Amino acid sequence: MSAAFKTVTIEGRFAMYRGGYLESPTLAYETWGVLNVARDNGILIFSGLSPSAHAAASEQDPSAGWWEEMIGPGSPLDTDQFFVIAVNSLGSCFGSTGPASVNPETGQIYRLKFPVLTMEDIAESTHRVVLHLGIERLHAVIGCSMGGMSGLAYCVNHPQACSSFVSISSCTSALPFSIAVRSLQREMIRRDPKWLDGEYDPSEPPLMGQRLARKLGMMTYRSAREWEQRFGRERVADKSETGDQFGIEFSVESYLQNHAEKFSGAFDANCYLYLSRASDLFDFAEHGSSLEGAFARLQFDRALVISVETDILFPPHQQREFAKSLAAVGSDTKLIELDCIRGHDSFLVDMDAFQPVIRDFFAS
Amino acid sequence: MSAAFKTVTIEGRFAMYRGGYLESPTLAYETWGVLNVARDNGILIFSGLSPSAHAAASEQDPSAGWWEEMIGPGSPLDTDQFFVIAVNSLGSCFGSTGPASVNPETGQIYRLKFPVLTMEDIAESTHRVVLHLGIERLHAVIGCSMGGMSGLAYCVNHPQACSSFVSISSCTSALPFSIAVRSLQREMIRRDPKWLDGEYDPSEPPLMGQRLARKLGMMTYRSAREWEQRFGRERVADKSETGDQFGIEFSVESYLQNHAEKFSGAFDANCYLYLSRASDLFDFAEHGSSLEGAFARLQFDRALVISVETDILFPPHQQREFAKSLAAVGSDTKLIELDCIRGHDSFLVDMDAFQPVIRDFFAS
Repeated sequence: MSAAFKTVTIEGRFAMYRGGYLESPTLAYETWGVLNVARDNGILIFSGLSPSAHAAASEQDPSAGWWEEMIGPGSPLDTDQFFVIAVNSLGSCFGSTGPASVNPETGQIYRLKFPVLTMEDIAESTHRVVLHLGIERLHAVIGCSMGGMSGLAYCVNHPQACSSFVSISSCTSALPFSIAVRSLQREMIRRDPKWLDGEYDPSEPPLMGQRLARKLGMMTYRSAREWEQRFGRERVADKSETGDQFGIEFSVESYLQNHAEKFSGAFDANCYLYLSRASDLFDFAEHGSSLEGAFARLQFDRALVISVETDILFPPHQQREFAKSLAAVGSDTKLIELDCIRGHDSFLVDMDAFQPVIRDFFAS
Repeated sequence: MSAAFKTVTIEGRFAMYRGGYLESPTLAYETWGVLNVARDNGILIFSGLSPSAHAAASEQDPSAGWWEEMIGPGSPLDTDQFFVIAVNSLGSCFGSTGPASVNPETGQIYRLKFPVLTMEDIAESTHRVVLHLGIERLHAVIGCSMGGMSGLAYCVNHPQACSSFVSISSCTSALPFSIAVRSLQREMIRRDPKWLDGEYDPSEPPLMGQRLARKLGMMTYRSAREWEQRFGRERVADKSETGDQFGIEFSVESYLQNHAEKFSGAFDANCYLYLSRASDLFDFAEHGSSLEGAFARLQFDRALVISVETDILFPPHQQREFAKSLAAVGSDTKLIELDCIRGHDSFLVDMDAFQPVIRDFFAS
């Protein structure tokens, strides 16, 4: 990770939604394009659980970002026109304060002493970054995956702060299947003997549990249909004659192993646990006397809900209800259902499907 | 487990499909009803990965079996008419020889010295039980889940030994998603420090890994739709104030925990690994020059393929292809697609849907 990102420190005590506080937390962010004189061309991206603020390349950091093909001059989020902002979520580990950060009050790493993290905290801390940039009203908030939830929290608590909203493969609250998946991922990490109740040496993290969790993640981020086309029953070419009869034999096993290796070293285990639990806890209905009541507090002019047919974490029927609720409170809402085969991750990898949808929304 | 089952010992060396042999292996089985004089009323059930031969109550063992409501006088598998046989699969641990058994040649538990297990071995050893019972031609073979694969292996290697075939939520070879799920389940067990490369003390098994594997199992045996209706975002009533912020909070987490506790102590970890891998390895196409060639060797009069809409391990499109292949080689094939919400496990728990289908097939 380069240090191309900028930071904002929120001075003083930052009160957390479920109690407790953080002393002067830091938020890391990156921006692309130029804020116009009217200060009304800002597009704020709330990311999924794992990315940093490096959504796209920049002069300071030319490496490709996690949404590289979406952001830039002439891209769907056209930086000749818009000022795009991505923030590393509070609780993460790429420059923003999280469980892996040092608590300035104690000089110790927070670890499990970090207060309960929620989408509302991610939203509120991000709002401070937006204010710091001198923006009172954003052109749009875009929330991808978990970011759709933090984006909703942002918009419901600051209804005047944004004129349009894009939810990509997200929801108003997690379904029990998604909770079960994340619960098991957390348990895999917590059962790793190296986790040590969160007190692991940062150079000796619970990698085994993290790898297992990542493999389960991949099973829910992609789709069975994709794997059927891509791997079928193909075997790995280089199955070493180790005599390990339970070792890697099928290509799909090798694929999962490679993904698990790549991710696990890069993300702090405790941060992962906090962000994962925060995704379970969010329930938009808490922002009103009912779910309808919460929706009634939103004041977008336009909304776009993008759903992927093969997404098993945030399935299409959930997206349809989400769009229906938005439309019911009067925002000009469009629901786009994409028949991508790459599941929940399609917004990251299926640019042929996603670019035109994002482009159309921001061109109109 | 009671010892109501009977056993057959296959005298001498039993050659395994992928090499190696077992010395005089034992097969445990139970039967219900009476074999008629013509010896042509036998129905053989191949079970899924985990059950014992105790499919239903009997005089010797009045406890409920795993398919209790399907077998008995007047039941869909009517024991007033049929002689029903269930065998504990070779490689399992409920009376049949498997990795947890003692190798008579060494006096040691087989553990990982058990030869590679395949569906063909399960089929062939089961065939010996059928011959022992004096049956040359069965009225039907029924295969549930994994049992559909061992059932196919049985029928292709003994085409004259069975006149009709019922496949329930099974396949001709596993899809990569199912392989990925089982691969991760095996890895969870193998990464448990107590697994000790299979050399665990039977009184100190790798329970933690087994519990994790069972939780993932439940996610694929049931369905997201069922859990949405059944649990939603319901919380557990008795969330103890342990201060464990990552502990069980949602009802779906508690449900998984209860299932994991129940199963894990009962099934030997090494046996699980062998049966799980055997499910990945099976490829019916190996029994011919092509998949079509393998199907052409079958000689059923009638076949029934039952598919469940919410089954993510053996999804409907796979069942349709299976039925199409059976019909193409001239057997009178019926495909029944059930819209059960309880996923892959529906055949065990949704009797309202399954009883009439099985009843109709055997009444006609």
